[in-house]
Amino acid sequence: MRMNATWGKVAMIFMFGLLSGANAQPQTSATLNLMPWPANVQQGSGALKIDQSFAIAFTGYTEPRLDRAGQRFVDRLHRQTGLLLANKGGDAAKATLVVHTDKASKEVQELGEDESYTLEVTSQGAKLNAANPLGALRGLQTFLQLVDVSPNGFAAPAVSIKDQPRFAWRGLMIDSSRHFTPLDVLKRNLDGMEAVKLNVFHWHISDNQGFRAESKKFPKLHGSGSAGLFYTQDEIRDVIAYARDRGMRVVPEFDMPGHSTSWLVGYPEIASGPGPFNIDQDWGVMDPAIDPTNEKTYKFLDEFIGEMTKLFPDHYFHIGGDEVNGKAWDSNTKIQEFKKAHNFKTNEELQAYFSGRVQKLVNKHGKATIGWDEIFVPGAPKDIVIHSWRGPKALAEAAKQGYQGILSNGYYIDLMWSAARHYAVDPLSGDAASLSPDEQKRVLGGEATMWSEYVNWENIDSRIWPRTAAIAERFWSPQNVTDVNSMYTRMENVSEKLEWIGLTHKSYYRKMLQRIAGPATPEEFAALKTLVDVLEPVKDYTREQTATYQANSATPLNRVVDVASPDSDVARHFDNAATAFVSGACKDAATSAQLRAWLLKWQANDAALQSLAQKSSLVKEVAPNSQDLSAVAGIGLAALDAISQGTKLSDDAKAQAAAIIADAGKGKAQLLLVPTSTIQKLVDAASNGGACAGKN
Amino acid sequence: MRMNATWGKVAMIFMFGLLSGANAQPQTSATLNLMPWPANVQQGSGALKIDQSFAIAFTGYTEPRLDRAGQRFVDRLHRQTGLLLANKGGDAAKATLVVHTDKASKEVQELGEDESYTLEVTSQGAKLNAANPLGALRGLQTFLQLVDVSPNGFAAPAVSIKDQPRFAWRGLMIDSSRHFTPLDVLKRNLDGMEAVKLNVFHWHISDNQGFRAESKKFPKLHGSGSAGLFYTQDEIRDVIAYARDRGMRVVPEFDMPGHSTSWLVGYPEIASGPGPFNIDQDWGVMDPAIDPTNEKTYKFLDEFIGEMTKLFPDHYFHIGGDEVNGKAWDSNTKIQEFKKAHNFKTNEELQAYFSGRVQKLVNKHGKATIGWDEIFVPGAPKDIVIHSWRGPKALAEAAKQGYQGILSNGYYIDLMWSAARHYAVDPLSGDAASLSPDEQKRVLGGEATMWSEYVNWENIDSRIWPRTAAIAERFWSPQNVTDVNSMYTRMENVSEKLEWIGLTHKSYYRKMLQRIAGPATPEEFAALKTLVDVLEPVKDYTREQTATYQANSATPLNRVVDVASPDSDVARHFDNAATAFVSGACKDAATSAQLRAWLLKWQANDAALQSLAQKSSLVKEVAPNSQDLSAVAGIGLAALDAISQGTKLSDDAKAQAAAIIADAGKGKAQLLLVPTSTIQKLVDAASNGGACAGKN
Repeated sequence: MRMNATWGKVAMIFMFGLLSGANAQPQTSATLNLMPWPANVQQGSGALKIDQSFAIAFTGYTEPRLDRAGQRFVDRLHRQTGLLLANKGGDAAKATLVVHTDKASKEVQELGEDESYTLEVTSQGAKLNAANPLGALRGLQTFLQLVDVSPNGFAAPAVSIKDQPRFAWRGLMIDSSRHFTPLDVLKRNLDGMEAVKLNVFHWHISDNQGFRAESKKFPKLHGSGSAGLFYTQDEIRDVIAYARDRGMRVVPEFDMPGHSTSWLVGYPEIASGPGPFNIDQDWGVMDPAIDPTNEKTYKFLDEFIGEMTKLFPDHYFHIGGDEVNGKAWDSNTKIQEFKKAHNFKTNEELQAYFSGRVQKLVNKHGKATIGWDEIFVPGAPKDIVIHSWRGPKALAEAAKQGYQGILSNGYYIDLMWSAARHYAVDPLSGDAASLSPDEQKRVLGGEATMWSEYVNWENIDSRIWPRTAAIAERFWSPQNVTDVNSMYTRMENVSEKLEWIGLTHKSYYRKMLQRIAGPATPEEFAALKTLVDVLEPVKDYTREQTATYQANSATPLNRVVDVASPDSDVARHFDNAATAFVSGACKDAATSAQLRAWLLKWQANDAALQSLAQKSSLVKEVAPNSQDLSAVAGIGLAALDAISQGTKLSDDAKAQAAAIIADAGKGKAQLLLVPTSTIQKLVDAASNGGACAGKN
Repeated sequence: MRMNATWGKVAMIFMFGLLSGANAQPQTSATLNLMPWPANVQQGSGALKIDQSFAIAFTGYTEPRLDRAGQRFVDRLHRQTGLLLANKGGDAAKATLVVHTDKASKEVQELGEDESYTLEVTSQGAKLNAANPLGALRGLQTFLQLVDVSPNGFAAPAVSIKDQPRFAWRGLMIDSSRHFTPLDVLKRNLDGMEAVKLNVFHWHISDNQGFRAESKKFPKLHGSGSAGLFYTQDEIRDVIAYARDRGMRVVPEFDMPGHSTSWLVGYPEIASGPGPFNIDQDWGVMDPAIDPTNEKTYKFLDEFIGEMTKLFPDHYFHIGGDEVNGKAWDSNTKIQEFKKAHNFKTNEELQAYFSGRVQKLVNKHGKATIGWDEIFVPGAPKDIVIHSWRGPKALAEAAKQGYQGILSNGYYIDLMWSAARHYAVDPLSGDAASLSPDEQKRVLGGEATMWSEYVNWENIDSRIWPRTAAIAERFWSPQNVTDVNSMYTRMENVSEKLEWIGLTHKSYYRKMLQRIAGPATPEEFAALKTLVDVLEPVKDYTREQTATYQANSATPLNRVVDVASPDSDVARHFDNAATAFVSGACKDAATSAQLRAWLLKWQANDAALQSLAQKSSLVKEVAPNSQDLSAVAGIGLAALDAISQGTKLSDDAKAQAAAIIADAGKGKAQLLLVPTSTIQKLVDAASNGGACAGKN
């Protein structure tokens, strides 16, 4: 489900509370580029050289999945190093890396299966031991993260790791309805999930804007509800097999009774209102809903759930359940009569009735229900899982009543938060922190959610990665792993490695900028990149709220807001430097020079950008952002001058700066100029000259 | 065939001659980013807006290939613009672009088929007319190149184009033997070829290092000769269909009697020397050769050619024929006796006998032979095509005797020449320039050749593109289209567009640098990029000649020499600026400032680079290049200072500069520091102060 604006605000306030309350623990080691950070790490001395003689061998329990994992591992290692690896034979006595697996895992991957492993790397070789193939898969990814170029060629540092996840449910949801996700895009993201040890792919496969799964029993679902963009059952089985190979479950979501316009296009007979229906093109919460009072609905759903629970082998079946606005029910007299007859005072009670019946159908077909907060109704069967978009409070409430749940509130990656902000969210924080140990066990983990209004094949990777790696660490690593600087250092390294498996979250950037720049000179292109490097899309639902037109599924995603990173690396590095400078009493000359170089570049950048804006309408949109960057850079330079000369900014200068900074701080073209707040820090240091100089 | 070092030198001297003699004609218009430049262009006023309402319609003759071309066109346009194109229906009255095709082309594409088209673009719409589908395909690519972002969204400028190729044979050869070319890599390069109107994919599919085509008659050819890396016949048919869809012929090359070790692994009975044979791992000219004196050989080749001419429908069958060193023949007494019996004085005569017999076999199976210079022997059938690696002289000689030929000398893209250097080579230059008009018609065109010793899936695109676009222009455009600056401007634009079809010649760069950089800080990574941006791999066969170890098929291609561009954009822009500055009497202050900014950046770059060199062995290799860059930048700055102060460099300073520049000019780590020669220009201007200031 997509948080609406009200909930977004509540969540935001809540998150800021969390952020400031977060208790950052130092990492045991900052030199290993591992993410998620393992439960236990001990660094040794020396390193294992990786060269062409590298070979991997599997001992103990084996299966074709492990063979394929070995092949994939060698291919990854080749891509990552450029080395042509002999990998001859599978002789454990001669292998560089020996993987020992004790026994098989379950035929259909289950919630809570053992994923632990140990990994010993010495200069002589490496040993990976796991109880079952899942642990082996996790350990192989850890090994790949250890390998990097060194002063002596490629190597993995000596290390002893004993690792297991904190939470059993570590997911990524992808919404394939609002924008269809091509199969190759899905698969490369599953590869990314494997790399950071996520284990649930939650496939949001139907919504108002498209029914993307082929149904053989009800062919008008995808036939009339997808405009031809759907996954065949063979393709779905292929994705499931692909996920299983990577130690991941696939949980499908068929959202009902709301978010269901696409169902009703082909099957208006189960709708609450009169048809005909068309696939929704627009974004937002829609009125159409399935009729919960019609026995035809349950007959339909019985057959449909029967078909889909056979297609998707996972034990859990996600029925959505979110955001029913009730309008279709209110305007249907038959439904009103039904409510009266059943003594339902509210639409929530009517939905509870619906949820209860659907949960029984899911159980009848041998599965358990998962759904958004709304399915948590009195008398719900104890085997359901509450998927909380509302927050930890709702999750804690459920846990107290004996229900299991997972958290997505705080992990909505479509909201363009920084990795740090997501990283500060813990499934066992807030109300959940005071749960008893037994109650806490019911909090199974969480899921990052990629709602797809503003992502397509081209930029989706950049909205999922690398931030989801930080969220994956939150789900896997011990609760006290919270150092944000360490997280960013490791995330930047992992981000580079993720491109070797085919993700495009970094390489998309230059290409999309080039389209925006069009016939630019090299200098003009550089100016555009310099500007966009420090812009971020506006956060939460501000994009909708500030839109000058109604965005929909036909809106091109080719603007600067579609390419700018949600978490600017350059702005973060600038802020880190400025923060260190100011807190170091503004004394460090090297940092001062570095800050000055940034500011001079930004100040001078506007000329070439404005020239390009005359040629490209897509650049013209960000011309005001560029003027702002130039202006605030000028303020930053004046502040630096004042600091270096030991003078204090005048009140006039301060007031003028404050006005410019306030204006630049506003979102323009749905983009935020991130360095603005950092420049305010320099102004504060300069104007509060006493404080900055006072530390001398 | 691969030019050996002697020939390389001859070619180089020849080319420099050509370069200086080239007669640069001004372009009629520099504002259209078209490549190859059309035969006739007239710019109109206004532009055709491209938005979501865009639709394409086909009239006249139609076929499924045109439908697919339309679909591919719409997909390309979407990728290039980010617009979701409705493209509803095929109603010519409402379409934005109407493509009219008169009649079908040949069922199997033939040499010399009509590829002409006309394209009229006005603010109201566009019309593309072609005699057959080949012309329509060419015109669609022209239209795609016209579309770019403008002050008013995406648009194509109003233009009237009447276009046809200068040469009928415009090819790219890819060597899939030395490094296997994965199918997806091949296909994206075929897409690139289509984009620049090439029409022959010459597939060098067997050589000493691998026999890559499945043979059902002789399964040990690929079975024993490819280490498992071969194309099945289905895959080959798929590639041929893919090429036909794009208006391209596929000419296979089975190189014989030399370059054939991989054949002999499975079939030693047709070898000139005793077996057993192993697939060659090393690069270079090898001794093994097919036995031209054994009737078994011709029986084998009859059956083999029969099979392969059925698989490859093109009329031409390439039999290689190059670089037989004769050692296997000299050491076989039976072959010596055969030579005596036939009164063959030389091995060349023996090879001529072999060529003649193979040419007859090719004719017997309904095809004509193409082969390298060596197949041009007295009495050769008149239907053969001479593929000249030796140069225009050989080509002219053949044309005089009534033989057709194509040129590859000068288009060896593995030799790391700049685009300008390839661009200056004309198939009808040198001895060919003085041919009679009828003789000139026998020069059919040329081929760029991608020999694959130093390319794999990762960097091959960057060695083919964008330079091959300049060669494609040489083959397509009128002979007087020779302006190098215009070529580079247009090539840089086309290069960006080529990435939208999946080529990775630009995006590979950051990724390979990242692997080399390993655990770099952002500043260190930037320093590495700044350095590599101005390095080029050494030219011609210097890489082999300066190697400290014997490179072979197991050598990793992960060094800076494997990533550095063959034609540095930054160094070219720097040189253009410096050349303009010096020729403008060193007066332009803005250019002076620009040059100073470059030089300051380079001078300061070494510190971060050396720091990174301590962490990465792959960076350490280029640490001397970085010191050189810093040193020559210092010299450049001193020269600029002297110029701006109106002083003259002392003889001592000049001598010192000369020594440093001479040292920096040497290849190090098999890389050239390109700005060195430009900095010499600044030194000349400064020391010859009179000349530079004299223009004031």
